[in-house]
Amino acid sequence: MSIQTIRWTNGHVKLIDQTKLPGKLVYIHCRDVKTLWQAIRRLSVRGAPALGVAAAFGVLLGIKSFSGSGSRSRNRNDRKRFSKHVERISDYLATSRPTAVNLFNALTRMKAVIQRHPGADVAQLKDLLKKEALAVYEEDRTLCRKMGDFGARLVPSGGRLLTVCNAGALATVDYGTALGVMYSAKAKGKKFQVYSCETRPLLQGARLTVWELLRSGIDTTLICDNMAATLMKQGKIDAVFAGADRIAANGDTANKIGTYNLAVLAKHHRIPFYVVAPQSTFDLSIAGGKQIPIEERSREEVLGFGGRPTAPRQVKVYNPAFDVTDNALITAIVTEKGIIRPPFRKNIKRTFRPKTKD
Amino acid sequence: MSIQTIRWTNGHVKLIDQTKLPGKLVYIHCRDVKTLWQAIRRLSVRGAPALGVAAAFGVLLGIKSFSGSGSRSRNRNDRKRFSKHVERISDYLATSRPTAVNLFNALTRMKAVIQRHPGADVAQLKDLLKKEALAVYEEDRTLCRKMGDFGARLVPSGGRLLTVCNAGALATVDYGTALGVMYSAKAKGKKFQVYSCETRPLLQGARLTVWELLRSGIDTTLICDNMAATLMKQGKIDAVFAGADRIAANGDTANKIGTYNLAVLAKHHRIPFYVVAPQSTFDLSIAGGKQIPIEERSREEVLGFGGRPTAPRQVKVYNPAFDVTDNALITAIVTEKGIIRPPFRKNIKRTFRPKTKD
Repeated sequence: MSIQTIRWTNGHVKLIDQTKLPGKLVYIHCRDVKTLWQAIRRLSVRGAPALGVAAAFGVLLGIKSFSGSGSRSRNRNDRKRFSKHVERISDYLATSRPTAVNLFNALTRMKAVIQRHPGADVAQLKDLLKKEALAVYEEDRTLCRKMGDFGARLVPSGGRLLTVCNAGALATVDYGTALGVMYSAKAKGKKFQVYSCETRPLLQGARLTVWELLRSGIDTTLICDNMAATLMKQGKIDAVFAGADRIAANGDTANKIGTYNLAVLAKHHRIPFYVVAPQSTFDLSIAGGKQIPIEERSREEVLGFGGRPTAPRQVKVYNPAFDVTDNALITAIVTEKGIIRPPFRKNIKRTFRPKTKD
Repeated sequence: MSIQTIRWTNGHVKLIDQTKLPGKLVYIHCRDVKTLWQAIRRLSVRGAPALGVAAAFGVLLGIKSFSGSGSRSRNRNDRKRFSKHVERISDYLATSRPTAVNLFNALTRMKAVIQRHPGADVAQLKDLLKKEALAVYEEDRTLCRKMGDFGARLVPSGGRLLTVCNAGALATVDYGTALGVMYSAKAKGKKFQVYSCETRPLLQGARLTVWELLRSGIDTTLICDNMAATLMKQGKIDAVFAGADRIAANGDTANKIGTYNLAVLAKHHRIPFYVVAPQSTFDLSIAGGKQIPIEERSREEVLGFGGRPTAPRQVKVYNPAFDVTDNALITAIVTEKGIIRPPFRKNIKRTFRPKTKD
């Protein structure tokens, strides 16, 4: 494997430009916040957990340029200015994409560092922020492997699995959530095969998931999104595994457009539907999915592909990037703390409450 | 409107090359059976009713070249040779596409002409076959308008309709089945809007349906196939209208891949799901959908988008061109004889039996 989706290296962010996959494996070096913001907006880096890491690293990029009256000074004024500067960077990064809560959670974590160290000067805060960002990064690596191990229990022997979009190494630091389950199942010697929905409009399934799974030697079949129903009807799918961009307190789950479609189909065909996501994807401040903001993206994404028009330009377009799957359609949510089953409101609270203290 | 999808003109078949739409409106002139066969295979002409007309015209192309011992001769041998020749042409045309029964039904009609006129010589048979082919053509025009008028009653005032693939003028001679309902509703002054699923892999919804509907001044919005579920959940769809390629005696309906998906979604969201198809799309010789052969098409269709590769080439692909919707998911089937509601087996029989004599 060894896909290094995003890294902090030599004082800047190095990330795979996912818009160039599967054709080319190209890296982008982001040396300032704006370059990173643009990389997020145009989906060079995407996937909820990876966006959390990107946001944390974004803060590091932003504070590089901060010049106080002297890094060793304990000047209160410098500290206050620095804190405001971090607020501004965070606010800016928060405008890049609205749905994945990991991005906001990571920014909140970074800002909390400053609150937690009222006595630290700017230089110390810079060090502490760097440590926090690298902790977000390292935790992602660990959490994905834990989720993978829990989730692998849900992979039936000889199973035919269905997934949507890319919830893999490319959506995280290096392993993945839904695809992490498959990597873990493979490492444990389980036999299975995977169907990947191509995931219009931006084809993350065809471009990214297929690329990742083939690199890992997993038996993979590509389908168009509208073919999943017929596969299920033919009895060819044993379980659906999807990632998540935001999960409400009741388990309602926002994820890439098309996920809700698969959940309805899975219910109709009595196929288990699993969501795989770390705690950082949960937004316990919202009660249900209706409160999750859904990003609508450019009409151009639907009107063609790779600059090739496929529909008359004057047509209206509806292009929501995400949808929300009702908790009633979800069989279980795999987290790094274990597998959460219904009733979700109660069990999510129980899973995270005793351990939310860092 | 005035879209003339397919015509018999000056002794040959003139048809719109639908692979060039919406970019260019180009016609293909088929002067021999092979050219027509290829036009069918590569989907220059497609849509179940249009395929019926194309097959009938294909027989006309095939008999042009038949040379008997003399056109006025009553030579039994000539007649027998001619009959065999028509069989061969029909068998060849039947290999072009396997799912739409209209194609086979039209060929059966053409061959039956010869059986019905045991005393006719080759020249007379040629005349009779031409009449029959033109009757298939003319009937399509009439039937579509009848279906449109029946179906228009099902369009709610201010309704938001969803359709898949292209069941329009381009799928018939000049009016359409599912879209014919919309043209008829518009002609009656009804207000409504239409969402068109782009219909991967070949994008007949984006390319053909959007092109047709916009030409007719109908309020049209394009979506990717995986967005229909979320539209339904938001309460933005009042009815689904789809065409059909083959309908079994029990109402099970084969249609473009993705139709079954929409039917499951419609059921889940309690939205009526209508099929619009003429009697020639019914195959009463088969009891249920399991017996309908489903065409699987080239992997290339899924591996790319408008000629651009989008997935690693070494991946496996599943590409069924059609799926089968269970009768239990269908609210009603709109035909030229009226609207058929459940129980379908009984009501289909009742609708067609008394009138199947030609």
